Amino acid sequence: MGRLTGGDPSLLRRINSAVVLHALRAAEAPTLTDLVNVTGLSRPTVEGVVEGLMDTGLVVEAAVDENAARRQGRPARRFRFRVEAGHLLGIEIGPHRIAALLADLGGRVRGSAHVEVSETASADERLDQVRVAVADLLKRSGVARASLRAVGVASPGIVEADGTIRLGTALPQWTGLPLGERLRRSFRCPVLVENDANAAAVAEHWKGAAVGSDDMVFVLAGLSPGAGSLIGGRLHRGFGGAAGEIGALHLLGREATPEEVLSTTGEPLHPLDEAQVARVFTLAGQGDAGARAAVERYLRRLVHDVAALVLALDPELVVVGGWAAGPAGVLEPLRRELARYCLRPPRVEQSLLGEAAVATGALRLALDHVEEQLFAVEGTVTARRRSGV
Amino acid sequence: MGRLTGGDPSLLRRINSAVVLHALRAAEAPTLTDLVNVTGLSRPTVEGVVEGLMDTGLVVEAAVDENAARRQGRPARRFRFRVEAGHLLGIEIGPHRIAALLADLGGRVRGSAHVEVSETASADERLDQVRVAVADLLKRSGVARASLRAVGVASPGIVEADGTIRLGTALPQWTGLPLGERLRRSFRCPVLVENDANAAAVAEHWKGAAVGSDDMVFVLAGLSPGAGSLIGGRLHRGFGGAAGEIGALHLLGREATPEEVLSTTGEPLHPLDEAQVARVFTLAGQGDAGARAAVERYLRRLVHDVAALVLALDPELVVVGGWAAGPAGVLEPLRRELARYCLRPPRVEQSLLGEAAVATGALRLALDHVEEQLFAVEGTVTARRRSGV
Repeated sequence: MGRLTGGDPSLLRRINSAVVLHALRAAEAPTLTDLVNVTGLSRPTVEGVVEGLMDTGLVVEAAVDENAARRQGRPARRFRFRVEAGHLLGIEIGPHRIAALLADLGGRVRGSAHVEVSETASADERLDQVRVAVADLLKRSGVARASLRAVGVASPGIVEADGTIRLGTALPQWTGLPLGERLRRSFRCPVLVENDANAAAVAEHWKGAAVGSDDMVFVLAGLSPGAGSLIGGRLHRGFGGAAGEIGALHLLGREATPEEVLSTTGEPLHPLDEAQVARVFTLAGQGDAGARAAVERYLRRLVHDVAALVLALDPELVVVGGWAAGPAGVLEPLRRELARYCLRPPRVEQSLLGEAAVATGALRLALDHVEEQLFAVEGTVTARRRSGV
Repeated sequence: MGRLTGGDPSLLRRINSAVVLHALRAAEAPTLTDLVNVTGLSRPTVEGVVEGLMDTGLVVEAAVDENAARRQGRPARRFRFRVEAGHLLGIEIGPHRIAALLADLGGRVRGSAHVEVSETASADERLDQVRVAVADLLKRSGVARASLRAVGVASPGIVEADGTIRLGTALPQWTGLPLGERLRRSFRCPVLVENDANAAAVAEHWKGAAVGSDDMVFVLAGLSPGAGSLIGGRLHRGFGGAAGEIGALHLLGREATPEEVLSTTGEPLHPLDEAQVARVFTLAGQGDAGARAAVERYLRRLVHDVAALVLALDPELVVVGGWAAGPAGVLEPLRRELARYCLRPPRVEQSLLGEAAVATGALRLALDHVEEQLFAVEGTVTARRRSGV
């Protein structure tokens, strides 16, 4: 039982620490008086908390402005949150490439790395490439591995709570892979594993097309479309982590697979051959009748899948990313059809983050984890943060 | 900014009141000492709060057990939450009937009323019938109208936050009806309006087939199926209140309407003619080939709609209610097909509340509203309640 108002001084201290730390992060080098005013805590309490935070290395005294010092005599001490006190990684593991982003505790990106990888690479080979990319990134950025506080990893597939891939057909040997466990051997900080479309949804909400839209769906439009959704600003993973895995929907109608639908020859496309897919879209854009028919079939499928998501969830916004979201014009047909069939059609926008969406989302999830550790006290402070404290 | 730990003694008092009231409701006539032990508050604080609650009429001293009194000399005073201090109504407004449930502040049902109504009744006629049913119910139960603290109302349609029906094709003159505003004239307490399938989802979670399942979908299987869903134990309404309105999904495939699908004559059924629908299901059960084919077509449609919901949301449990959930055996085909197409198929159960589900859910929503007013303090206490305080 969480006792808030009586009996547990250590809980109260933790709440006070979180409140002060939050105020420190939000302000520009505040003084003790600033912190007292913002938090409503007493001066001795704020002093005690700031001293404790300085001991942990998360807070330092800010450099004094010399001019101000000369004008005012001895100035009040100022403090700042040390965003450089720790670092985070966001990693995308995809069929063709591995991407990694490095950021400080303020979420600012300090560096990035990309590695091409074969779609037929084994799980071991793929994880080796992850390690190579990370080592290179840390070295180039001058950041010590020990400085990492959390690592977010996003990849296709249904992800269990412990970071195991329950089902992942897009990458060889991916189903059943204990991805979180395997990567934890390379890092001494928490490793969080997430589905790629889920991560992209988080990223577009953080700094993409969905800023300010707390109820949104991100559609990763590919041959097997996946989706991630935020409800009330929070990622909706579903009971078993499979929410948004709409790829199976067309099977119910006994329809053809996307690889067959997009084919202009009668031979199905290879599921991961993006160049071949791009060719079909390009030909369609040039007026080729067969390619146009194939793209039409594909769009009808995509509209159906997205409509199912929209009818089930009723989001404010649908963001479309992935290779099919490009120049071939997925947006207009989607808007038109959703307006016909949805009682309250959502806005439809293209991804702003493009290729960076998945790794950026993985980074944000790592940052969320660290912030929860810094700020959360049994749900109480989380609730207050949501209400704007 | 919510200040929890400093500066706002009135907030602290409200938190303490909520904590004590919650403990009073959970225990069987506790003593002051019991309350001190359970809440972790000081004795003077608990005494002050209990006195305040007695002033408002929500708490009274419990009757003393005479035998215990004789044995122990002067016994400690005991207190109890007065569930009879206020009442709630849950009302279903459907195409064919109006149902109302009356409960006390503990959520215990004290009485019920049902009125048959024509599917062609105007909105005014339908609302008159609601007033008749409520007046009759209050009179029979000996409860004064002034004792009502909240009224929950559930009906088909998309409901705006202010209780207006944005779209409701199942009842005449329903689209655009300011249902909440119209009913507020009859009551001096808050009137909450909710979609019928949403209310049924809440009801099955409260005391039906979904007790303990916080991630569930309720499917109201009718000619135009609707659905309500809980995510993490909370109703998911969607950005515009249209979540779960899956009736339009089949239009995307340019398929026939359910009324055509279920027809054995080529003539579409009347959308609200439940007797005619029941006849088709009965004939199918007796082996009639035409009726069986019609039911097969209908089930295929239903499975598709439910699968779309399941793929989008990934619930733990699907509860099926409404007239099509009866003996015709919707459950087995649904289980079979979902297992084929969902990566992680949910459990599928029949509604336990049957016809009472919608009114029961409306009642629960009224109770939720009152409990929020009694207990919630800027989200803080809600967070604690969820964590089991």
